[in-house]
Amino acid sequence: MTARPLALTMGDPAGIGPEIVAAAWRRLSAGAAAPALVVCGDPDVMAAYAPVHLLAGPEALGGAFPADRLCVLETGRCTAPVVAGRPDPAHAPAILGAIRTAVSLALAGQVRGIVTAPIAKEPLYKAGFTSPGHTEFLGELTAHAPVDGPRRPVMMLAGGDLRVALATVHAPLARVPGLLSTQGLIDLGRLVHHALVRDFGMARPRIAVAGLNPHAGEGGSIGTEEATVIAPAVAALAAEGLDVRGPASADTLFHPEARATHDAVICMYHDQGLIPLKMLAFWSGVNITLGLPVVRTSPDHGTGFDIAGRGLARADSLLAAIALADSIASHRGLA
Amino acid sequence: MTARPLALTMGDPAGIGPEIVAAAWRRLSAGAAAPALVVCGDPDVMAAYAPVHLLAGPEALGGAFPADRLCVLETGRCTAPVVAGRPDPAHAPAILGAIRTAVSLALAGQVRGIVTAPIAKEPLYKAGFTSPGHTEFLGELTAHAPVDGPRRPVMMLAGGDLRVALATVHAPLARVPGLLSTQGLIDLGRLVHHALVRDFGMARPRIAVAGLNPHAGEGGSIGTEEATVIAPAVAALAAEGLDVRGPASADTLFHPEARATHDAVICMYHDQGLIPLKMLAFWSGVNITLGLPVVRTSPDHGTGFDIAGRGLARADSLLAAIALADSIASHRGLA
Repeated sequence: MTARPLALTMGDPAGIGPEIVAAAWRRLSAGAAAPALVVCGDPDVMAAYAPVHLLAGPEALGGAFPADRLCVLETGRCTAPVVAGRPDPAHAPAILGAIRTAVSLALAGQVRGIVTAPIAKEPLYKAGFTSPGHTEFLGELTAHAPVDGPRRPVMMLAGGDLRVALATVHAPLARVPGLLSTQGLIDLGRLVHHALVRDFGMARPRIAVAGLNPHAGEGGSIGTEEATVIAPAVAALAAEGLDVRGPASADTLFHPEARATHDAVICMYHDQGLIPLKMLAFWSGVNITLGLPVVRTSPDHGTGFDIAGRGLARADSLLAAIALADSIASHRGLA
Repeated sequence: MTARPLALTMGDPAGIGPEIVAAAWRRLSAGAAAPALVVCGDPDVMAAYAPVHLLAGPEALGGAFPADRLCVLETGRCTAPVVAGRPDPAHAPAILGAIRTAVSLALAGQVRGIVTAPIAKEPLYKAGFTSPGHTEFLGELTAHAPVDGPRRPVMMLAGGDLRVALATVHAPLARVPGLLSTQGLIDLGRLVHHALVRDFGMARPRIAVAGLNPHAGEGGSIGTEEATVIAPAVAALAAEGLDVRGPASADTLFHPEARATHDAVICMYHDQGLIPLKMLAFWSGVNITLGLPVVRTSPDHGTGFDIAGRGLARADSLLAAIALADSIASHRGLA
């Protein structure tokens, strides 16, 4: 293989990460033009799920990969026994080491992008981790690197024929109205537009903006944020020449005819975007982080501690995440 | 025809109501076992869209209906010219008269139920109407009548294989958390259970309850209403022997596999229920008012002033509303 690989982080070793990484590799290695993959993680953890080829070091990334073994770059070993379904704060250094190395490799151009398997915040917090989440951690790790376009980690989710970008993510619903700002939505709109052009190859992306309130406020009688916060952002973006429309009643944006009229929807809160996304692609949704200096996707699900190690986890979402990272890297000209 | 008819209100005469009522009647009269229908409204308005048979009065409801004409009971004439697409406060008495008469007929047992065509609040408010909306108006008109089961107008929407019941409806999103209460959710759960048994003929309905926050609060780290307000209501309902489960992350309740596990979802706010409902049934969703002494359904869309009178309006939702009112009336034993 000549193309640089994509880096896959193993995720929480006690979750479904290692097994879906192995399953995805197995599925892809059976096909023809699959992207080259390297797993950043603990080779012993991965060896429980696939035959492993241990890379001697990052310099081996430029060489040929064996087709019948899963290439693993050791990025830190777990210092406590790994038991499927039992998260352990002792695994935190290995989990975080995999992510740190993958980011370094991507920033150095040694991999084309990163696909991250799920991690759980709770055991990491117990071990002293302080970032609000996976995505924010990636933002911190790449904060010093130059970025082409607006910088700010933004969660976009893709599944079926739908893409949603979130203005707020893991905030309690009561806090959402106060977290929205016209400037924040303008920045988000620019970033989404930029990503759709660069990463998805769209000449003139069409962006729909959802309202916050029922019926998008119904002219102010069911809430005022549409008029005071959202509409001014839409107007500013349109004045820059972007094809941004709204705010529209959120329940009119997601049926098939509506989906054909836009390339992405900017949603005001988590479930406004995740309800339709997961209806369309419960098993195959992909989380894409926009606004980073590196390509990053991940499956749209958690660590699955309840089913880990039992052969029940589905690799659909991870496979879709790998395919999308490959496509984005290609659109960015990363061979 | 021997069965008592369903009453259809004409809705706002300047909207799509009269034309979809006529279109639905035309579609149904071409079939075999269609329910008998009587329109409450202005015969001249209806005559613009269908050949009309003017009933002499409510006493004629017990007689035979001609198959080739739309039966209309005059409930008040419009006193200003009716122009499609131009709402006029002068039409308010005719609009409200149709609703009042339909309710009276239903309470008196002269019709099996009511299917209401859309009205717009703005022109009614200008004419002195004071109810928050159509549904609340029906609650007022039936407040004196005995009700079998809990009394409280509750909006349920049905479309495809999904039913949703709303804990809050046309409230600004910022007000939603404060409007939720454990007792309110207990009352709602009982009412939804009662309706699924009586009106939908289910022996043991399965009710899912959505959380309010992303990931249903993720154990309290993204909001506390699940633990403090919703879970106690679910526990109380389950303790009464009802099959009520939750609160569940709202984005896990609406994909096909999830829909197969419940008969209705209790949603905390409008778009939580309306986004999935309209994705599944944008053109054919039905609004059902639970907790009234009379059967009432309506199409899940507005007056469509922008397309009224142009032959563009689709009667799908009204047809589904008629079919569901017919089914509910049959389940209630109303022949």
